[in-house]
Amino acid sequence: MKRTEIKKLFMSPESYLDVSVTVCGWVKTIRDSKSIGFIELNDGSSFANLQIILEQDKLENFSQVVKLNVGSALVVHGKLIMTPQAKQPFEIHAQSIEVEGASTPEYPLQKKRHSLEFLRSIAHLRPRTNTFAAVFRVRSVAAYAIHKFFNERGFVYVHTPLITGSDCEGAGEMFRVTCLDAKNPPLTETGEVDFSQDFFGKLTSLTVSGQLEAECMAMAFSNVYTFGPTFRAENSNTPRHAAEFWMIEPEIAFAELSDDMELAQDMIKFVLSYVMEQCPQEMEFFNNFYDKGLIQRLKGIISSDFAHVTYTEAIEILEKAKDKFEYPVYWGCDLQTEHERYLTEQVMKKPVFVTDYPKEIKAFYMRMNDDNKTVAAVDLLVPGIGEIIGGSQREERLDVLLKRMEELKLNPQDYSWYLDLRRWGGTKHAGFGLGFERLIMYITGVSNIRDVLPFPRTTGSAEY
Amino acid sequence: MKRTEIKKLFMSPESYLDVSVTVCGWVKTIRDSKSIGFIELNDGSSFANLQIILEQDKLENFSQVVKLNVGSALVVHGKLIMTPQAKQPFEIHAQSIEVEGASTPEYPLQKKRHSLEFLRSIAHLRPRTNTFAAVFRVRSVAAYAIHKFFNERGFVYVHTPLITGSDCEGAGEMFRVTCLDAKNPPLTETGEVDFSQDFFGKLTSLTVSGQLEAECMAMAFSNVYTFGPTFRAENSNTPRHAAEFWMIEPEIAFAELSDDMELAQDMIKFVLSYVMEQCPQEMEFFNNFYDKGLIQRLKGIISSDFAHVTYTEAIEILEKAKDKFEYPVYWGCDLQTEHERYLTEQVMKKPVFVTDYPKEIKAFYMRMNDDNKTVAAVDLLVPGIGEIIGGSQREERLDVLLKRMEELKLNPQDYSWYLDLRRWGGTKHAGFGLGFERLIMYITGVSNIRDVLPFPRTTGSAEY
Repeated sequence: MKRTEIKKLFMSPESYLDVSVTVCGWVKTIRDSKSIGFIELNDGSSFANLQIILEQDKLENFSQVVKLNVGSALVVHGKLIMTPQAKQPFEIHAQSIEVEGASTPEYPLQKKRHSLEFLRSIAHLRPRTNTFAAVFRVRSVAAYAIHKFFNERGFVYVHTPLITGSDCEGAGEMFRVTCLDAKNPPLTETGEVDFSQDFFGKLTSLTVSGQLEAECMAMAFSNVYTFGPTFRAENSNTPRHAAEFWMIEPEIAFAELSDDMELAQDMIKFVLSYVMEQCPQEMEFFNNFYDKGLIQRLKGIISSDFAHVTYTEAIEILEKAKDKFEYPVYWGCDLQTEHERYLTEQVMKKPVFVTDYPKEIKAFYMRMNDDNKTVAAVDLLVPGIGEIIGGSQREERLDVLLKRMEELKLNPQDYSWYLDLRRWGGTKHAGFGLGFERLIMYITGVSNIRDVLPFPRTTGSAEY
Repeated sequence: MKRTEIKKLFMSPESYLDVSVTVCGWVKTIRDSKSIGFIELNDGSSFANLQIILEQDKLENFSQVVKLNVGSALVVHGKLIMTPQAKQPFEIHAQSIEVEGASTPEYPLQKKRHSLEFLRSIAHLRPRTNTFAAVFRVRSVAAYAIHKFFNERGFVYVHTPLITGSDCEGAGEMFRVTCLDAKNPPLTETGEVDFSQDFFGKLTSLTVSGQLEAECMAMAFSNVYTFGPTFRAENSNTPRHAAEFWMIEPEIAFAELSDDMELAQDMIKFVLSYVMEQCPQEMEFFNNFYDKGLIQRLKGIISSDFAHVTYTEAIEILEKAKDKFEYPVYWGCDLQTEHERYLTEQVMKKPVFVTDYPKEIKAFYMRMNDDNKTVAAVDLLVPGIGEIIGGSQREERLDVLLKRMEELKLNPQDYSWYLDLRRWGGTKHAGFGLGFERLIMYITGVSNIRDVLPFPRTTGSAEY
């Protein structure tokens, strides 16, 4: 069967004028009036539906087809007719229609508006709605944009492992990966669980970051990035947290924090531009139904530089507005989402890089600044979301790194390979992590992370 | 610091002739003879090294630099000089050199040939060798080629979940994902482990395939693909098996098995062509050091059609050569690697699609053929590897699928969402899974899967 995708018809209807075409797709709406019927058909190749005209005297199974339910799958053979007077530029006059798979009145996606909460309960069907067709196409296009951006700059794409025996951030909240008997695990002589008998011969978990492994690769290729799933066993039941999400982590050698921020800004702008160019109908949909100012705001971000502020300056700004906040503000505090959003939404009114955080609230591998109080860390905050990127220049000085690990009571032997990178040919280097779902929320205006993941995994929920 | 990547110099040395350039990289070789020194520098942007010339009377720290160890990281400021008489087309005459990070005589990658086994034990450093620089660049370029191929065809890239409460293949060998106390898990009243108290409120595992979820998306977008990590807790200590690997799984609606095979062939050819075009130096390296016939063979594959044979025909062929095999051959047997390799290497001498396997050795979701004995399954076998792709047309007929599940004692309630796809607007559809590491082994001639994964996870091993 030679099938033509509906997108191709929209791209150049003229080239299909005098030929018979076969289109496949699902019925979005169907109505009939006496001897004529109208179907809006969608095959997922384009956001827009294709109008199909059925005529009783030309279509053998007219009376069967017009009684079909929404959601039915059809194969339509017909002729393309230009309709310059009508709302849609052309339509297909059906010559024959095969019902590939019928639907029933019980189909949950009848033509009406459904709440996002309800649609979450039918995640296997929701990609067929306008909202999720648009979200998941934007997600796909944005993912491609990220690969394209890094590829054009010669970055090597690295697949860092998800199952790990080490804990990058030096913090808990990891899922254990195991094949041991859940009820009666083998025990050591001292009565502890004997992980040496587990699949990998040791305790393993799902990674929270591929950064340390990406650093190994950056010390060979200079510029690398990861793009893969990451996990947090964090009991956060918020619209911004998922237990499984995708992260992009570039790592650049011979580079400092300023190079890192430049890269982050270029990347964000590239992805926004690419999505707006490739998905105009989807973006218009989000602008109309989810966030009236969306397109204008994104255009503003593409055309202006991001703001910069140090953590210390940010605290000064926030202290002046402390009555507005639930959480206290003081030098040394970790910024809460309310602080982050105030900074980017009320003060800067655009994305802002906050740099040079107190060492106490950041990870051991971040490069110590000369003040010995702050580290060369950076977070990018964006309106509507808060933190979307966290990054840093990495500590490349072996002695400084060892001292910091000692302060934090980290065992150097657990990180011997990481320290090797500083022993032999170490260089200044930096990187960041971008939460992919937060980027999609930012681009689409959709405010719950559960609605930008095809099958979200959150506290208490791993359906499908 | 304005740094020029070495690749850019190789691309158009002329444009750097009269300017001072700054290059960064790692010392691959270093030698000196009286008042002149030679460094081969590599920054990972290109496979080829850059020749740096040091002159005693022009370089302040000449005597320090020429004593540096292999692996040291340098920042070199210098002038580009064309050398039409020499092996390399140009060289850099150093004006000043900063030692960004020294190396020591203990550096494990001294200039000599190392075994792949030894290099596996220093996976954090091996990307700095020629072999792994080439392998991981090819891996990156092949990954990009896959995204490019599907993007150009309008496929939607789908991130299916890795943590799952269901088991796609209906078979075990999965890793458990848990936050329960390993030693004293909570128990139910009947004394079983109470997974309802675990993070997701149920027993969860790492997925072996994103196919079922991809099918949901294909019923909305028609053409989708996944590209992500997959897991097998299989105790297979072979050069072809890893516990964590990446898989590509396209799923196409309104499509049959023949469309599936056409897509697979087009994809393989596209990726091979793209890698050969983008990585000529790396491919020449593999051809010289790993497999003398590699390039010629890959070119042959790009320019000819793949073979086709049914499972029944394949058995007939294999039975004639049964003396050659360790495992018995009979209609109904699962093909072993020795059988697969004989078929593709000795009989067909090229990639071959084997179709229509006995239903007993294939998964429940594969479409039943009219003979009621075989299913519309396909494996693609390639020389040197064996199976690289497994796919099928999916059973879209609800009654046939339910009957098959009953035969296999699968509970339809566990698959209610999967069955919904057949209830409302189901269509003919098909898909396949390509093991990404096996593709890389096939392209590079590298014969152990541990050498195409940056940080391999195999039975008993999860280092780094």
